[in-house]
Formats: sequence, structure tokens, C-alpha cells
Amino acid sequence: MRYEELTIEGRNAVLEAFRAGKTIDKLFVLDGCQDGPVRSIIREAKKQGTILTFVPKERLDQLSETRKHQGVVAFAAAYEYAEVEDILKIAEEKGEPPFLLLLDNIEDPHNLGAIIRTANLAGVHGVIIPKRRAVGLTATVAKTSAGAINYTPVAKVGNLSKTIQELKKKGIWFACADMSGTKMYELDLTGPIGLVVGSEGDGVSKLVKENCDFAASIPMAGEIDSLNASVAAGVLAYEIVRQRLGAVKK
Amino acid sequence: MRYEELTIEGRNAVLEAFRAGKTIDKLFVLDGCQDGPVRSIIREAKKQGTILTFVPKERLDQLSETRKHQGVVAFAAAYEYAEVEDILKIAEEKGEPPFLLLLDNIEDPHNLGAIIRTANLAGVHGVIIPKRRAVGLTATVAKTSAGAINYTPVAKVGNLSKTIQELKKKGIWFACADMSGTKMYELDLTGPIGLVVGSEGDGVSKLVKENCDFAASIPMAGEIDSLNASVAAGVLAYEIVRQRLGAVKK
Repeated sequence: MRYEELTIEGRNAVLEAFRAGKTIDKLFVLDGCQDGPVRSIIREAKKQGTILTFVPKERLDQLSETRKHQGVVAFAAAYEYAEVEDILKIAEEKGEPPFLLLLDNIEDPHNLGAIIRTANLAGVHGVIIPKRRAVGLTATVAKTSAGAINYTPVAKVGNLSKTIQELKKKGIWFACADMSGTKMYELDLTGPIGLVVGSEGDGVSKLVKENCDFAASIPMAGEIDSLNASVAAGVLAYEIVRQRLGAVKK
Repeated sequence: MRYEELTIEGRNAVLEAFRAGKTIDKLFVLDGCQDGPVRSIIREAKKQGTILTFVPKERLDQLSETRKHQGVVAFAAAYEYAEVEDILKIAEEKGEPPFLLLLDNIEDPHNLGAIIRTANLAGVHGVIIPKRRAVGLTATVAKTSAGAINYTPVAKVGNLSKTIQELKKKGIWFACADMSGTKMYELDLTGPIGLVVGSEGDGVSKLVKENCDFAASIPMAGEIDSLNASVAAGVLAYEIVRQRLGAVKK
């Protein structure tokens, strides 16, 4: 596991971090900020013995990485990367077939954050990203994830293809997002599954694609090329949710 | 109809604008930029008699609204708002039951752009936004829409509830995104439909909700509150696509 210092910014993100039991080292609040959400944050900070400092706007802007701090910036010990094994354990404890989301070439922190947010709500047990080229768990990712980063584990692996090969041995099937693949509605996406989503420009890389069991496409009616990566991940993840719910009913 | 001067930025957005036959008044290109995509844009500009100027980076940064111009900034005459009637005509010409997307309280231009992008690919005939509080069709919206703004009409109406009431008389049903609504899989979303999506914070406003025929929810398994608005719009729109494809098969 790896630790990094991290700033958490914005009211929701900071409050969620406290409530999720994350260790916040320092909290900076805008001078004179006294409304309800900020008071809740200050209450949490006092409860947990966090060092609290009131600062003027200029100082807060300096501390902020996203420039959207909404009057609060916290320094957390870390966002901790999980191991793939931890993710599988979560699925096991919930008594659910594993539901993983693997991201290839996602370099935009807003997309990564939005995808972690979707993963949390779709019941994905964990997100797996490659070490090379991927963005880390920065303040922007944390903010865009709307707090989901505190609940949904993210594992970083050296080689996505190798991880897929190992997980296939454990009975997990891999579906890769691919515009030339089979329409997602026609595939059986129930059971233990890893959904692999690529970047908007390049999609899933060739080698990773070759390691997947099937390619799933979203039907596209329009004139332009592709969906936003986080929307595509959401639409595909929710097709899996739909099929899983149907499978439970049977 | 209304016209506004508008900057279009980024290679895809500018190229799509040319190819969609939009009138570009002026094109600014970064000095020395000679790669393939930029050459395609310059070719299009010459074909259409657009005034072309090469400028240094500082000047281009000044002209840029999004700060992500990728070496090209174009000034277009306008993005034209459509009328609701135009949108219905498109559905009629395609021989499809109308599929509309109505946005309530969406104030973030990135969300609006991403939603227009999804609308285009999901086969939505047009997007309807309220005049009050909504963002306009700015350069950020155009860029985030990845060119979809050139194909998918956007209408601006004075009162969303009134528009819904009028469209109901024409046989269109309205489904509103609502976390406490019926699971979307359990609703019949085939036929002429208007999907109403609200902002992340406030959702669809009470009055608009009351005018809808049913409330549709996305199943949520996680710990956090809500999906990103553009992801939620995508997931709901694609449930409609799925049901429509199924209805055609029958």
C-alpha cells in the first residue's frame, strides 16, 4: 500500500472524508465562514482533534489545487490504494459475484473522479487502474468523485493485461468497451465480471482488448464519434446492474 | 431564433463545425502548427473562404475562453437556438416517436455540453432548456459537446412546465429523473417521450416534477448521494434507447 499527502477541497468532499473516518491532519477554513455546512465540518474537526486554522481568502486560494475550495481545504494523510485482493474480498463479504471496473488510458482527473463516483453507486466493488500513464488520486479526483473515493477502493497495477489474465483464472469474465463490439444488450453480463473502459481518443489498448472475453458496444445513433468516457462507463456499468437485477429475480 | 457571436475552440470542435456547414467568420491558428488535424482545418477554412490568421501563443491564449484551444480558435456567426416545433419536425421526418431531453437547473457548461453529446448519440431529437438560470451555448458547452451542438438542436423556452403541458397535448409522455421514483427498468419508456433531468444538487424542481407523468429512478447501491448529472442523463437516456430497440424487435 502507498500513502501520499493530499488536499481535500470543497464542503461535500471534506465532510464526507471526516464521516468516512479518514485521518485529516489539518483543516483550513475561510475567515468568517459561518454557515451550516461549514459549522458541521468544524464540529467534525473538533471531535477528531484536527488542527483547525482560519485563513483569509488569498491564503486559501494558494492552498487550493482545484480553485473550487468553497471555503474549506483539508490536508489528509493519504488516499490509500487498495490491492486487487482487497477488492475481491469486499465482493466475497457482500456475497456478490465480483464486479470490477478497469480503466485503460484514463488520464483526465475529472473523468477518473466521475467514474469512481459512478462505480460507487452502481455497486462496483473496486476500480483498477494501471500505474503507467494513469492519473493518481489527486484533490481534483477526490472532489469530482463527490466523496466516493472514501468508499470505493482503487487499486493500481503494473500491467493491466497481466492482472486480467490472473483474474480470469479466478473465474472472472472481462468485457471491454469497444464501439465495434456486440451490442451490450445482447451479451450476458451477469456473473463475476470486469468491465474495461478506455479513453475517449484511443479506447482500450489492443493488448488489453485481446485479453478480454468479449467486446461490448453502446448503440450510437448520432453524427459524432463517441460518448464522454465517464458517461460511457456509466451506461455500460448500469447495463451490468440491470442484468444482475434481472438475474436475481429469476 | 437568436444569434450570438461565439468562439469555437479545440481541433475536433472546429473541424466538426466546418464539416457541419457552420459559417465560420474568422479562424486563428497557432504559428508554426503544421500537423495533420490542423492542416485539415486549414483546408476546410480555405474551401469556405474563412479569414485565416496565424498568431503567437500569447494572442491565442487571449482569444481563448476555455484555455484548451489546442492551437485553433474560430469565431462563428452563432449557435442557433431551435424552436420546439423544429425538434418535433425532425422526429417526424425520421419517422420516429419524439425523444426529447429537458434540462432543469443545469448551470454547469461542462454538464450541458456532455449532455448534448450524449443526446446526439442516444438519438434524442432535441434538447430543451429554460431561459432562466440555464447556461447558454458558450464555447465551453460547444467544446464539451464534442461537436454535437452542430447536429442536435437546443431550444430555449420561457417556462418548462408550460412547455411540458403543451407537449402532453400532442401525446408526448414525460418521465422525470427522481431518486425516489420507480426503478427505470420497471417503467414503460417506449413511445413519444420527454426525459426531464435536473441538477445534481436540487434535482428537478417541484413544479416541473408535478407536471411529469412518471418519476424514474436509477438504482443506487453505494454510500454517496447522487450521480453526476451528465452520467445520470446518459444512464436514463440509454434505458429509453434499450426499451425502444426492444419495442422495434417485437
